[in-house]
Amino acid sequence: MDEKPTGPTETRTIEFTDPLATARLGMTLSGLEFLRGMADGTVPPPPIAVLMNMDIESVEEGRVSFGGTPDPSHYNPIGMVHGGFAATMLDTVCGCAVHSTLPAGKAYTSIEIKVSYLRPLQAGTRLVATGVVTKPGSRVAFAEATLAGMDGTLVATASSSLLVFDPRT
Amino acid sequence: MDEKPTGPTETRTIEFTDPLATARLGMTLSGLEFLRGMADGTVPPPPIAVLMNMDIESVEEGRVSFGGTPDPSHYNPIGMVHGGFAATMLDTVCGCAVHSTLPAGKAYTSIEIKVSYLRPLQAGTRLVATGVVTKPGSRVAFAEATLAGMDGTLVATASSSLLVFDPRT
Amino acid sequence: MDEKPTGPTETRTIEFTDPLATARLGMTLSGLEFLRGMADGTVPPPPIAVLMNMDIESVEEGRVSFGGTPDPSHYNPIGMVHGGFAATMLDTVCGCAVHSTLPAGKAYTSIEIKVSYLRPLQAGTRLVATGVVTKPGSRVAFAEATLAGMDGTLVATASSSLLVFDPRT
Amino acid sequence: MDEKPTGPTETRTIEFTDPLATARLGMTLSGLEFLRGMADGTVPPPPIAVLMNMDIESVEEGRVSFGGTPDPSHYNPIGMVHGGFAATMLDTVCGCAVHSTLPAGKAYTSIEIKVSYLRPLQAGTRLVATGVVTKPGSRVAFAEATLAGMDGTLVATASSSLLVFDPRT
Repeated sequence: MDEKPTGPTETRTIEFTDPLATARLGMTLSGLEFLRGMADGTVPPPPIAVLMNMDIESVEEGRVSFGGTPDPSHYNPIGMVHGGFAATMLDTVCGCAVHSTLPAGKAYTSIEIKVSYLRPLQAGTRLVATGVVTKPGSRVAFAEATLAGMDGTLVATASSSLLVFDPRT
Repeated sequence: MDEKPTGPTETRTIEFTDPLATARLGMTLSGLEFLRGMADGTVPPPPIAVLMNMDIESVEEGRVSFGGTPDPSHYNPIGMVHGGFAATMLDTVCGCAVHSTLPAGKAYTSIEIKVSYLRPLQAGTRLVATGVVTKPGSRVAFAEATLAGMDGTLVATASSSLLVFDPRT
Repeated sequence: MDEKPTGPTETRTIEFTDPLATARLGMTLSGLEFLRGMADGTVPPPPIAVLMNMDIESVEEGRVSFGGTPDPSHYNPIGMVHGGFAATMLDTVCGCAVHSTLPAGKAYTSIEIKVSYLRPLQAGTRLVATGVVTKPGSRVAFAEATLAGMDGTLVATASSSLLVFDPRT
Repeated sequence: MDEKPTGPTETRTIEFTDPLATARLGMTLSGLEFLRGMADGTVPPPPIAVLMNMDIESVEEGRVSFGGTPDPSHYNPIGMVHGGFAATMLDTVCGCAVHSTLPAGKAYTSIEIKVSYLRPLQAGTRLVATGVVTKPGSRVAFAEATLAGMDGTLVATASSSLLVFDPRT
């Protein structure tokens, strides 16, 4: 690798389950059943959770927490964990918080998210993201989320709006 | 893997260069030199670029484009590419567009980003993210970005504000 | 007014037309007809336009511009035009840009807006806000907007998502 | 007024104190002193507060609440209170929450704000906006805010980042 003069290389291997099979299973369950299945291991984690070292901490209706730990594979070119790591965790918990309020057969998708980066992130620091539904809805739902260290220090916050729809129409 | 009943597993291995060595090199170069080095292969890509299958398309002062292609490892639990993929690409080009305006020794960090998800993403679709500085600044800079398919169809947009600072003070 | 020791007082009087009557008229027209009526004076301006000294500059399908001039009544306590002035102009043109794409009988409402404040505003400076639909939609539409001085200098930008719905369902 | 055929007109007159005199006074006080002066009537309210029928409810370090009541002059053309009303209240309490953490001589300005519109607003409904600093800072501070009815029902939320600076440099 002549073109990479500045440092040693590392490799990382991830293993994940076919996400489309998981999604088909998901459409037969309520959001709460689906997420609780993911928490207890009967539903496989989505690939993005593996990529970002995320796991479910807790699930209740309208409130979902994921843990996650950035590693060197998440770094940006200026020596910090890329903002995409926090954005992915925060988008995940906003989406799952809304999902936890939906019956089987209802679908959702993120309309937008804003992420505020309060403090820089280091590899190896376990973080907890918690998403809360601020307003459920049959067409649009709103959620907000925090990302904090294990001592409670806020590192990022987010707000998101999500479209709720019937995928058969 | 008894706990993953719903589909076959896949593996993905990535290889990346020590990001802190790259970041130290970066502080000796102007943003434009650093990004052009990344484009011509003399500066290694950051790990996040490898993780998200991103590569630099073009670099000019105040305007940077990256290409990227989501794959199955970027999927969320509802059968779509996770919004974190688009957020990471858009955050990257907003940050790099601001970086391209900075002299050697100046640093930047994202204050916040808002991402609008206009259309869903599929694995295997090559995308181009372009970030443009809407206002440079010695303390705060603003950038906006688009993410589009190769036919120009917009799939996401973003706006971001970034702090510009001297890391020695 | 004993409790206001620091400076002379000014008064401002505004006159506006009953907004609910205007809104009822609006539901019988396409968005483009309604906005063109407002531009040519056959539909009265909404009160907020009077409050913010706004007037329509141009209307086409998916793209609407308003002019506006802040005055001393729009100041915040730290000696600048309040950010709410720019936010109101930008929200207006995002909403009207989406409205201009809707047939009679369809309604819209803002889901959210993000406003970036690039430069401070002074009273007496004529500004033009232009909103453009980045993606129309039957359920969610997206718009982006700029606010600029008459010489084209950007003073603020915004992105917004809007819900499109049938008010009879 | 031949060009306003659809409804009766109303007038509204506001009276406000020279905002630049108030701002000069403000620079000699800490943020907390300035805001408490506004709450107890020894500092005049800014014009925007008069325009939006706002008054201070409470001030403590890092947390500020304003009350406000929209009236017909705040209506948009589609028969609802314009989103700019909520945006102005939310921007105000985010800014004042950060101001309440600053010593005399320090200045701040909003970098950006995102406002989520959870429910529509009606004229005549008293609302309370509360802004809280989520992270103070010597260069950038972050604040979040809620807007709620007197029964606590959330009608809008916001997040904002603000630049903190020394106006003499």
